[in-house]
Amino acid sequence: MEINDRFLRACRRKPVDVTPVWFMRQAGRYMPEYRAIREKYSLLEICYQPELAAEVTLQPVRLLGVDAAILFADILLPVIPLGLGLEFAKGEGPVIGKPVRSLEDVRALNPVDAETDLGYVLEAIRILRGELKGVPLIGFCGAPFTVASYIIEGGSSREFLKTKTMMYSAPEVWHMLMEKLSGILAEYLVAQIRAGAQAVQIFDSWAGALSPQDYESFVLPYSQKVLQAAKAENVPVIHFGTNTTTLLPLMKRAGGDVIGLDWRIPLDDGWALLGDDVAVQGNLDPALLFAPLPKIQTRVQDILRRAAGRPGHIFNLGHGILQHTPVDNVKAVVDMVHEYSRPPFALSGAERSRSGEEV
Amino acid sequence: MEINDRFLRACRRKPVDVTPVWFMRQAGRYMPEYRAIREKYSLLEICYQPELAAEVTLQPVRLLGVDAAILFADILLPVIPLGLGLEFAKGEGPVIGKPVRSLEDVRALNPVDAETDLGYVLEAIRILRGELKGVPLIGFCGAPFTVASYIIEGGSSREFLKTKTMMYSAPEVWHMLMEKLSGILAEYLVAQIRAGAQAVQIFDSWAGALSPQDYESFVLPYSQKVLQAAKAENVPVIHFGTNTTTLLPLMKRAGGDVIGLDWRIPLDDGWALLGDDVAVQGNLDPALLFAPLPKIQTRVQDILRRAAGRPGHIFNLGHGILQHTPVDNVKAVVDMVHEYSRPPFALSGAERSRSGEEV
Repeated sequence: MEINDRFLRACRRKPVDVTPVWFMRQAGRYMPEYRAIREKYSLLEICYQPELAAEVTLQPVRLLGVDAAILFADILLPVIPLGLGLEFAKGEGPVIGKPVRSLEDVRALNPVDAETDLGYVLEAIRILRGELKGVPLIGFCGAPFTVASYIIEGGSSREFLKTKTMMYSAPEVWHMLMEKLSGILAEYLVAQIRAGAQAVQIFDSWAGALSPQDYESFVLPYSQKVLQAAKAENVPVIHFGTNTTTLLPLMKRAGGDVIGLDWRIPLDDGWALLGDDVAVQGNLDPALLFAPLPKIQTRVQDILRRAAGRPGHIFNLGHGILQHTPVDNVKAVVDMVHEYSRPPFALSGAERSRSGEEV
Repeated sequence: MEINDRFLRACRRKPVDVTPVWFMRQAGRYMPEYRAIREKYSLLEICYQPELAAEVTLQPVRLLGVDAAILFADILLPVIPLGLGLEFAKGEGPVIGKPVRSLEDVRALNPVDAETDLGYVLEAIRILRGELKGVPLIGFCGAPFTVASYIIEGGSSREFLKTKTMMYSAPEVWHMLMEKLSGILAEYLVAQIRAGAQAVQIFDSWAGALSPQDYESFVLPYSQKVLQAAKAENVPVIHFGTNTTTLLPLMKRAGGDVIGLDWRIPLDDGWALLGDDVAVQGNLDPALLFAPLPKIQTRVQDILRRAAGRPGHIFNLGHGILQHTPVDNVKAVVDMVHEYSRPPFALSGAERSRSGEEV
């Protein structure tokens, strides 16, 4: 079996043959093969059926040639055993049936056992490890803040007003909620690793709505708890957020072998803010996948140039693939990243390992 | 007539008796007096009737004791004479009837003459200058990017995908649109100043969706054109955006005597990025106005401490007042800012001018 270890090596800042690339939401509606399955099953039905979740996870690996698979699941799945209800309303994103607003609401949350309550996710991971044939599998969960924001707001939000108001006006409720969530998410992530995930990512997609001081007081300790639990399992841990320029040093302090950078900060500037003892992932604007190929090419080259061939760059978007993204452009980016980072065409002359070498 | 010149002095980085404070969207739905008028008139009806617009502008000046009035108007008013149609759908924000998507659409835009097409705005300014009794009046317009994003998307947006796609895929259309918009907005702002606005702000509320390189190529030259036209009229110019940490040096290059800082960056860090040859405005999170007073007080003091009594800080929120904000908390912030920045209680010992001194 040929092992593709670029991604795992890059997470650990080891030299690689070419820069690894994968995409957040690489399995999704932009892909006809996925839409064909979604005609028959809802998002949650796919998640609940490990064989289907595994199939959907494999689609982009087969079609795009990415260097990592990411488990098909949703960051809000743990909300279901918490007893809050989860639906995906047409075109409106997730809707939480019973939002959490008070101390009583937090106390009423069910305990969650990953093995019994989210066993279908773990089963999908086990199936995938048998089928992935050397391509590494990423498990994931939402970060405590991002999950909390959904369950407090009752769904997506622009201002996060109810979430922030709980922080400011009822900090004891907030901290009890975050304590519970971070415990559950840490166990969930560890269970994914023990089931076979070879790396994990925590998605703090909305942390960028916060000031650094709020992040530090209300979020950092809980993200840290989840990240440390994953790290203790000895797999690479990716810490992702968007809009996080001023939070990057705090996110690094919270933990992660790899920190996500969105398109708002040039990759080299972001890496300089973080320091070179951490790997980075990013940072193409997902909207650029709608551009003509020469424009995409220029930006891919620019990002690779800013990474300067330093070990520890994983190419990705700054956020998930958007719904109507042309598949051919996604595929083209995979090929561009591999081509432009391959010696002697590589954009820098940093030492690289031979492909297939063990991590 | 007692002149309150704190705001205008601070814009020019002159010493002040106490830190000036005003709020974006200080006239709005959070205020019962405004809601009483909105029961009888729509937002556009208020804008169209200069006496009503002036009355609504004056409400927060009377009730809050802020150090500046901002004209009641909407950044999308110029869209109406452009021929695109503008409605405010209940709870959905602005809806543009005929979005701009092609070269033909841009060519078909009507010419706009500020005096004839937006004369009602200028008339409101003239009325206000007679009534404001020494409190300075701020005029404003949307920045070309933010206005363009509305007219391309057809309303509010999260991803700005149509806007970015026009930039990337049809740059000639984009540049023609921005050329037209920046010309119209520059004339509109100059007309406001000539009608009596004593300072102006350009709102680039959504520029933070862009990477620095896109901002520099596709936005900066057009914002610069508007800002330079205003500057030539010798009034202070405020350049506002949110989510702009990585854009701040470019926004400064585009222009403005005062640059807005949102809550994502500590005020001192933002000011350090900009340099001390520019004033700053900000930077309380609007969500903090929902917090208990002691929490608000801590944050107000923190911001004033970070400004360190340096001339050139205008206290404001990082974005507009939110709809259900408690009026008492808004009023309390005005008093706190004045109290905590007044010698001998001031948080720093910087030299301050006596109140009432001419700018």
